[in-house]
Order: sequence, then C-alpha cells, then structure tokens
Amino acid sequence: MFSKTPPKGMRDFLPSELAFREQMLNTIVDTYSNFGFSRIETPCVEDLSILTSKQGGDNEKLIFKILKRGEKLDDAENGEICDLGLRYDLTVPLSRYIGANAGKLPTVFKAMQIGNVWRADRPQRGRFRQFIQSDIDILGEPSNLAEIELILATAETLRSLGLRGFTIRINDRKLLRALVKKCGFLESDYERTFIALDKLDKIGLDGVREEIASFAPDVVEKFLNIINLIISDNDGLSKCIQLLEDVLETEIIESFIQIMSVCKQLLTDCNVVFDVTLVRGMNYYTGSIYEISVEGFNGSVAGGGRYDDLIGKITGAPTCACGFSIGFERIYTILWEKGERATKTKVLSAVIVPKNISTEELMSVYNFAEQERLQGRRCSIEKRIKNFAFQLSVLREQNANIYGYKQGNIVKVEN
Amino acid sequence: MFSKTPPKGMRDFLPSELAFREQMLNTIVDTYSNFGFSRIETPCVEDLSILTSKQGGDNEKLIFKILKRGEKLDDAENGEICDLGLRYDLTVPLSRYIGANAGKLPTVFKAMQIGNVWRADRPQRGRFRQFIQSDIDILGEPSNLAEIELILATAETLRSLGLRGFTIRINDRKLLRALVKKCGFLESDYERTFIALDKLDKIGLDGVREEIASFAPDVVEKFLNIINLIISDNDGLSKCIQLLEDVLETEIIESFIQIMSVCKQLLTDCNVVFDVTLVRGMNYYTGSIYEISVEGFNGSVAGGGRYDDLIGKITGAPTCACGFSIGFERIYTILWEKGERATKTKVLSAVIVPKNISTEELMSVYNFAEQERLQGRRCSIEKRIKNFAFQLSVLREQNANIYGYKQGNIVKVEN
Repeated sequence: MFSKTPPKGMRDFLPSELAFREQMLNTIVDTYSNFGFSRIETPCVEDLSILTSKQGGDNEKLIFKILKRGEKLDDAENGEICDLGLRYDLTVPLSRYIGANAGKLPTVFKAMQIGNVWRADRPQRGRFRQFIQSDIDILGEPSNLAEIELILATAETLRSLGLRGFTIRINDRKLLRALVKKCGFLESDYERTFIALDKLDKIGLDGVREEIASFAPDVVEKFLNIINLIISDNDGLSKCIQLLEDVLETEIIESFIQIMSVCKQLLTDCNVVFDVTLVRGMNYYTGSIYEISVEGFNGSVAGGGRYDDLIGKITGAPTCACGFSIGFERIYTILWEKGERATKTKVLSAVIVPKNISTEELMSVYNFAEQERLQGRRCSIEKRIKNFAFQLSVLREQNANIYGYKQGNIVKVEN
Repeated sequence: MFSKTPPKGMRDFLPSELAFREQMLNTIVDTYSNFGFSRIETPCVEDLSILTSKQGGDNEKLIFKILKRGEKLDDAENGEICDLGLRYDLTVPLSRYIGANAGKLPTVFKAMQIGNVWRADRPQRGRFRQFIQSDIDILGEPSNLAEIELILATAETLRSLGLRGFTIRINDRKLLRALVKKCGFLESDYERTFIALDKLDKIGLDGVREEIASFAPDVVEKFLNIINLIISDNDGLSKCIQLLEDVLETEIIESFIQIMSVCKQLLTDCNVVFDVTLVRGMNYYTGSIYEISVEGFNGSVAGGGRYDDLIGKITGAPTCACGFSIGFERIYTILWEKGERATKTKVLSAVIVPKNISTEELMSVYNFAEQERLQGRRCSIEKRIKNFAFQLSVLREQNANIYGYKQGNIVKVEN
C-alpha cells in the first residue's frame, strides 16, 4: 500500500473547500475583468535557465527541479541532470510570455494571471508547497496610470471578496534610493539598509541601528534622524519631500503625490498612507511599491510595485511593468476560518431510488431529474444504501430537496 | 538572454484563447454540477511510489520526475534521486484522495476533477506535454446507476459545449473476458487478444489474426468466427448474449441491457451502439467501458469505464468506481478551428486620456469608469499612445465603446 496523504506541504480539497475557493476565484476574475484586465496562462513548468536567472531572489533556492528524460538524461552524466522546474511565481513566466507574444498583444497590456506556484519551503501554518497566486500586471505603461489602476482594481477585488477595513501603504523605491544616497551610504549598502528599515515596526530605530552598525556611524545617524523626522511628522510625505527636494526630480514627486491623492479621494473606505518604511522583499522593484492590510489581521493581504527592468533582463527587450499580487491563500484562510462558505450554488434535489428498479421506473426518475434541471436546480439520483439515515443526513446537510420512490411515484421525503 | 518559447510541448495562451478555454471549463463544471457532481482537487504533484504503482500502464514511462531536495538529495547518493512526480492522469490521484478522505465523503460520491496533467510524450499535432483532463467518477456505487448517470451527464456536457451527432459505443470487459475464455485462450493471452481486437476497424479480421498468430490456431479461429458473427449481425448484442449465455451470469447481461436500453431511450439524439471491438487501453477496467465520438471527427472525444479494483490496490480499502473522461484538448481544438470564440464576455468601454492629465480630470474619468462598471460593462482607462491608430484598431477588434477626453469632457469616439 501507499501513503494516502498528499506530498508534504500540499493539500487535497474537499468539495465544500473547493467550492469556496472556486467562488473566490470567479469573484477575482470578474472584478479584474471589469477593470479591463485579460486573463492569460503560461505552463506550470519553465526552463530551469529562466527560473534561475537571479530575478527570483531567495525563491530560486526553493525550486522543484525536474529530471531530464531519456537520451538527454543519459547524455547529462555528471553535468546538470535537470532541465526544467516548477515555477515559483508568476512574474518570471510573465516576463518570458511578454517576450514571446509581444507582437500579438496591445502596446499597453493589462494582464491577469491566476495559477498554482510551487516552493520547496519549510511547511508551516498558512504556508504551502503548492499554492495559488493571483496577479495583475500592466505592461508598457510608464505613467502612474498603471499604479492607480492596479490599486483601484485590487481594492475593489478585495472588497468584492468580502474584506473590509483596508490600509493601503505606499512608498517608492526611487524615493528610498534618494534618501539613502543623501545620507551618504555606499551603493553596495543600499539593499541591506532597506532590509533593516523594513523591520522598523518590529525592532524600532535602535534595532535598525544595530542591523546596520557596520556602516559609517555618521551616515547611519543621519539616516535614522531623517527616518525619525518623517515617521514622527503628521504629514510624513510632505516632510520627506521637503528633506529630499534637492535630490529627487520634481516629476517623480508629482507623480507620487498624484497616486496618493487620487487613491485617497476615490477609496474613501480605505486608509491610504505614505509609509517610508515599506520596502518589499524583491529587489527587482524600481519605482512605486504598495501593500494592503486588513483590520484585525497581521501582515498584508496584497502587495506589488513597479519593476521596469525585469522584463528587459529576461527577454532583451525592455518593457516597463507594474504589478499587484493578492495573497489568495492568506485570504482564503481568513475567510474560511471566519466560517464563510460558497453561497452561489444552486439548490440540490436528490431522488433516492430502491436497490432494484425496472427500466421503466428508472426512465420516469430520469425524466423527473431533467425537469428539475430545467427549472434551475441540480439533481442527483442515488440508490438507497443500507445506512439510509446517514444517506439522508448527508443530503440534509446540503439543504437538499429529498425525493423517494414509492409505489411507482416520486414523492417528497419530509426533511 | 533566455529562450522565450515555453518548454517543448507546452503552451502559452493568449487572452482570446484562454477566454474560450475558461468558458468551456465553466460550461463543463456547470453541467456536471447540475447532475450532482462535486468538484474536488488534488495536488499536481504526487509521491513517485504511487505514480509508479503499475496502475498507469505506459503512462508511467512518461512521468516528469522531481529531484529530491536538500539533505534528502545528499542522502540519496547513488540511490533513487527523485521522490515526487507530476501526475500523468487524475485517476491515480483520485484513488489516493478517496483513501485519504473517505470518512469525510458520502458513501456514494460523485466526483468531478478538472486539472492539468503532464506526460513527457513525443510532441505531435494535438498532443501536448501539459494538458487539461476533465473527469467525472462515481465512487461506491456498484450498480449500473453509475454508468447511466455518467453517460447521461457526459452526453449533456458535450451537447452544452456545442457538439452534435454523437455515437456512444458501449462494451463490457466482463463480456470480453467471457468471450475469450469461451474460445479457450490462456488467461495470460487475454490482454494481447484485446489489444488486437481493438484494432479491428483499422486492420480487419485478417489483421487481427496476424496479431495473435502465435496463439493456438483453433482458439484464434473460434474467436474470429464469433467476432464475425457478432459484428455482422444486425442485433449484435442479442447475438453476443446468445453465444455467451452459458458463460455469462444473467445479472451481468441484464445490467448491461438496461444501460443500453435507458441510454437509447433518453438520448434520442445519440446513436447508442453495442461495440464488441471496444477495448480501451487501460487494463484497470473491470466492467462496462464506453466511448463517445462526434460526426465528422476521427477518434473519440470522451471515454471511460468501471474500475472496481484500482482503488483497493492503491489504498488497501476496496471501493467500486466508475468514470468518464472528456478529451478537453481535443474538443478545444475542434471548436477553436471551427472559429468558435468566447461569447459570454461583457461589453468593453475604453477611455483614452491624454498623456498629461490633471488629478481633477483623472477623478472625473475614474468616476465615469465606475458608472460604466455599475451598468454592467467592463471599463479600461488608457493613456493615448504615439501610434493612436493602432490603439484604436486593437479596441475596435474587441468591439469596444471608445471614449476620448476633449476640453474637459468625456466624449465618444466614432467607431
């Protein structure tokens, strides 16, 4: 016999679970589609060379690699024995897709991707080795129209999933770079400084100081001083701009202010805030970055940013790009644990027939079932089983209309 | 730079292609759901031990194997270096699923599974290395109610996909076994005889004789004689039953006749026929087997059968089972090449805004877009690009309502 459990970190879904997940997916697809996004799909498998192109950060360490097959494996001998891998995100495959299909797509393309990705991560609560990612990306739009559309569409999608009480935190990698440059950090120290800054809410200014203690002390103090000025100001954005006006282009500042302003005015139910400590892990981001969190739940439920260089690095044809990803599994867990279930299912009718039933009797049952379906109900025909009470209880749990077969007639069983 | 094409035998889908595939999938899910089937899901990855349990026939030679990771790989040294594999069908994973979740499912369970499977097949026209399978299975129902439900539901699903002119061919492995037993074949020769019989329509009786020429000549001649009697009779089923009545249990015959009879009466638009030469490749089938073909297209578009032993072999807990699989990719290709496209998409409105637009103007555009969405249209906002004629042509191809922004007003652009 074989192990009946799925591979480590992967899941089987029961009908009620999958029905709810599918309803969530349909809601996401419908809402993004209303904003003009078109769904595309790439294979779950990609060439290992693309997956290990240094664009995926630490995720590249978590790739499920696929063994070469047949002659290719024989030829490999002591060389690389794998040629393919399961994708660990949807952004690297999207870059390849844009390179392969640019001629068949509009100049500015609003893409929606929903699909499984795989990471050989250490399984833990809420983290899986196969999980759904749900991304939207706008390709070829250099202006902040992309950011605004992505933020509006994602907020509306989260709302249509039934979530409420959003805080949208926005920052810009260009602004972060100007800030650390102004302080005098070496360019090679930027990324470590960002990573330290990202932890500010957990470790405080002193914690950040410790994390970057090896850098020049006067630079570090200047940096901590500026950060402190910004976060303790009621209007942190104005303070930040004031502090950086000599090193940041006006255009970048105006564009950023416009994103903040439009989102604040249109998303009256959201708390839209500038957060200078927002960094986001992936170092392919080149401009605006943003995250959405929900009242009552730690961490974010969606995140994204502008990544104008990634596609060029992978395909050789530079294309500006901006994306927003929803934490599908996170939201599924939140809603499921709140007791939410699929609601958009038709009423079920069930006809329980005796063990021995003639062809003529069966015909009448099937005709009845067809009528039920024509009237917009689901209809299932079942043989009466030994444990009739259990059979009834399962149907009652589904709020089914239950019918039996008595003396040649289909009769309703009292619920 | 990297190769922009997907891995060999795998596909990127453009928006119009994916929209049509998704519409097909929704149709399939809705129709099966109307018959009381519940969708379930298993991971795309399974333990290699289950995938190579000798239940998958030749497909087991086509597995994409996944390399062990970290310490497990170091420990493997010269032993088995792979521990997981991509599933090559949905039946083996279903068996594991039933073993793992039996306690949470009804005694008789009508399962629907739609998902990708992977086979390292030699790519050729219409055959892919990642493709969608669409299966329904009834678990725990020993009677022919299972077969009848599966056939009715599948015929209705194919109909709702827009296909017409079905021939449903039905046979039974028990009947085939009785037939070769009666002729005197050795049990070890059954499978090869079935495989030869399966080719009858292509190679004729003489061809079948050649394929099994190494078996006892008198046995072979008796077999060919019986087959010839059955296929040349107007009522082949009666002839077959008459010839086998001494070796087949009455119950089996009656059950088979009932399947044929109910399907014939209910599926008045289908040609329901008994086909003694129908074998179907997988040797896990234990009872009825069936295929559906469509007028004007070679081969079948759906196939299935009863496999009462498979689940017990994998899980140790015997469960009778019966399934029907739709050739999703085959049907997609047929319909796509006929020019069919997604029809159930909302009207698109597009607002083209000038390159420089003030925050106030943007606000009015977003308010307009929200109104469009509230009225049931999709609405996309785009910046005017240099190649305005191309931008317009792409939108016109989508039959979009196109709006421009002129002197502070949103005005319709003539199509």
